[in-house]
Amino acid sequence: MSYEQITCEIDGPLMILTLNRPDKLNAYTGTMGAEVADAFHRADEDDAVRAIIVTGAGRAFCAGADVSGGAKSFDTSGSHGAGVFASSGQRSGRFIEAIFNCRKPSIAAINGAAVGVGITMTLPMDVRIAADGARIGFIFARRGLVPEAGSAWFLPKLVGLPQSLRWCLSGRTFDADEAHKGGLVSEVVTSAQLMERARQIAAEMTSETSAVSIALTRQMLWRFAGAPDPFELLAIDKPMSIERGGHADVREGVQSFMEKRKPAFPGKVSQDMPSQYPWWRTAK
Amino acid sequence: MSYEQITCEIDGPLMILTLNRPDKLNAYTGTMGAEVADAFHRADEDDAVRAIIVTGAGRAFCAGADVSGGAKSFDTSGSHGAGVFASSGQRSGRFIEAIFNCRKPSIAAINGAAVGVGITMTLPMDVRIAADGARIGFIFARRGLVPEAGSAWFLPKLVGLPQSLRWCLSGRTFDADEAHKGGLVSEVVTSAQLMERARQIAAEMTSETSAVSIALTRQMLWRFAGAPDPFELLAIDKPMSIERGGHADVREGVQSFMEKRKPAFPGKVSQDMPSQYPWWRTAK
Amino acid sequence: MSYEQITCEIDGPLMILTLNRPDKLNAYTGTMGAEVADAFHRADEDDAVRAIIVTGAGRAFCAGADVSGGAKSFDTSGSHGAGVFASSGQRSGRFIEAIFNCRKPSIAAINGAAVGVGITMTLPMDVRIAADGARIGFIFARRGLVPEAGSAWFLPKLVGLPQSLRWCLSGRTFDADEAHKGGLVSEVVTSAQLMERARQIAAEMTSETSAVSIALTRQMLWRFAGAPDPFELLAIDKPMSIERGGHADVREGVQSFMEKRKPAFPGKVSQDMPSQYPWWRTAK
Repeated sequence: MSYEQITCEIDGPLMILTLNRPDKLNAYTGTMGAEVADAFHRADEDDAVRAIIVTGAGRAFCAGADVSGGAKSFDTSGSHGAGVFASSGQRSGRFIEAIFNCRKPSIAAINGAAVGVGITMTLPMDVRIAADGARIGFIFARRGLVPEAGSAWFLPKLVGLPQSLRWCLSGRTFDADEAHKGGLVSEVVTSAQLMERARQIAAEMTSETSAVSIALTRQMLWRFAGAPDPFELLAIDKPMSIERGGHADVREGVQSFMEKRKPAFPGKVSQDMPSQYPWWRTAK
Repeated sequence: MSYEQITCEIDGPLMILTLNRPDKLNAYTGTMGAEVADAFHRADEDDAVRAIIVTGAGRAFCAGADVSGGAKSFDTSGSHGAGVFASSGQRSGRFIEAIFNCRKPSIAAINGAAVGVGITMTLPMDVRIAADGARIGFIFARRGLVPEAGSAWFLPKLVGLPQSLRWCLSGRTFDADEAHKGGLVSEVVTSAQLMERARQIAAEMTSETSAVSIALTRQMLWRFAGAPDPFELLAIDKPMSIERGGHADVREGVQSFMEKRKPAFPGKVSQDMPSQYPWWRTAK
Repeated sequence: MSYEQITCEIDGPLMILTLNRPDKLNAYTGTMGAEVADAFHRADEDDAVRAIIVTGAGRAFCAGADVSGGAKSFDTSGSHGAGVFASSGQRSGRFIEAIFNCRKPSIAAINGAAVGVGITMTLPMDVRIAADGARIGFIFARRGLVPEAGSAWFLPKLVGLPQSLRWCLSGRTFDADEAHKGGLVSEVVTSAQLMERARQIAAEMTSETSAVSIALTRQMLWRFAGAPDPFELLAIDKPMSIERGGHADVREGVQSFMEKRKPAFPGKVSQDMPSQYPWWRTAK
């Protein structure tokens, strides 16, 4: 797994994905987006990976889109082909879908500034924690832009509509404590504690759970949280429960519970997903 | 109203529904689900019932699905016909719909352990309060299962997506205070105070309100909270307000307000629902 | 801009809209609703207006529908043609749509009692703050009515479903602190501070932002917060970002950022909205 702008390390059941342009404050480029998407695709397919932690090298998490092209950084017309959007070709947005569709949960360990796409890229992840010096901003309105990467859907799902409006309509940056109070990050720790805390949260999700259950649970919550009513889900979760009920995972889950020991689930995401998955029209 | 696994008492305007297998920690079976559904249907149709309180006999609320069948408790295949799902026949899920569609509000008085289906069955209710010793868990991923009973839709509606992900992706159990902090229960009281507090909350909803207004309000909130936009609702709530405006309930509502006395609404759910109800395709 | 029941003042980039029937506690009538709608349409079309503040004259914000017609105030049948609904003709609901569709953000400065339609009219606004003496109530169930003006959709979007159920199923009135704790108003200040604080919040949204970005951001958040998934948005926000990227607004946004000065965005809502707007079927 060799990348230009990120690094990707496998550590036990974890993939540690690090945005790695520290001299540019890990400014986002189309290349970085494509590499993040690729790493999430690998994590999705590798049964050994149970969770992904995303962080940044150096003092920033991701300072936003790379504007080293100056005032024309976002201009894709004429000869300004090197703009942020142009450089990403057809690939932009794909990293959001790769994170959203992934069957493994992901945790953003926000070590420093996370601005613009630097914060919106974390929204499809399952947990966000921040170091106490981090600054965050949905700064689009102060650049003449609009919230991108699906953030107008993701942000209200995570922090509610009133807080989303306040942050996006002002465009101002704020500190980690405000992010915590507003529900964007679930906790704030020191820089020194950040990665250890991210690993503890990942362990919560992996040490005693079925990989197949986690994959399904993650998709059920993200894909039905916005459904207009519970009826489509009720038609799916019953047969899925029944099919799972006949699987060795459930026998082990009940047995280990009755024996008061940790379970050792045999099921693998690569081969044991139930027949109902995926239940949406376009498979991942 | 004679049931095997629940008891059902009418007390003034309240139905008190008690899960009643105390020696099994009120473990859920298909029979229990069908009886809960039946009781909610009765409450729905009986004008004398204005609200339902659901609690558990003994020290638990409901410890989850009955796994006395051992490791094969969830297995419906071959000869394992006694599994939790099999025993409920076509009836599973129906208790969720009965609670959801009910025209009377319901309050879960969680007196003790509420785990798995023991907590998901409370999600379509309107209020949840807990005794301080209660422990709660969305433990599905630790059994190899998935969130059932529509909980992947209900839980994010009640506590938001980030909290739902944390509880369901870890599968761990937690105490009443964490449930309160996370928004799952609206208050925590002592065991001794629990039922009295549930009755006070029920009284808030019944003592000065129109039964027809409550039935409509409950359905409007649950069925439009997840709508993509307000336009379908705006097309319904105006004619419904106008039709209600000509009803004796509204004359009494305005008159009593002007006379600064408690209202005595004549309208009955059995016969005074407006012509717009139900406004969804499949009637309840 | 001459109105009967409201006043409307332009003050720099702000429109100050005041409900103005102080001797009636600014009780709502169909005329008032139509005038509010008209004022929001003007604000929407006037490039000089960047935000709207709505408040009430005298000691109330809006005490609810005008029930001076007595017990038949809501009755549109027969000779009771002067009822609240009748007097508004086809115009009712239109003020909600005018606020919702407006391309300028709005702030409710709730100076006193806001009851029934007096509070539901504020729900499509972007921010609500209250004076410490304000009392609020979704009192419909105590009058025999139902939540109107789309509030069964708006209220859960703002405060969540559990809090919406508690307020609407009881119909009781509550004070500004409870409104704040429940998330309905974002802050509570003294009456003397109220308008100044509303102006500060408006300045947050106007002083360093692009008018076109704010118009788009407002619509994106309100219209996608309730979408079932992020995919429709992802198909829109990318081309919109690219089109905006070629606009003078973005060049100024990036340039001013790099020069560490306040931006002066040239774009106007009247003529610079991108080709993707409106992206919903029925244009505003």
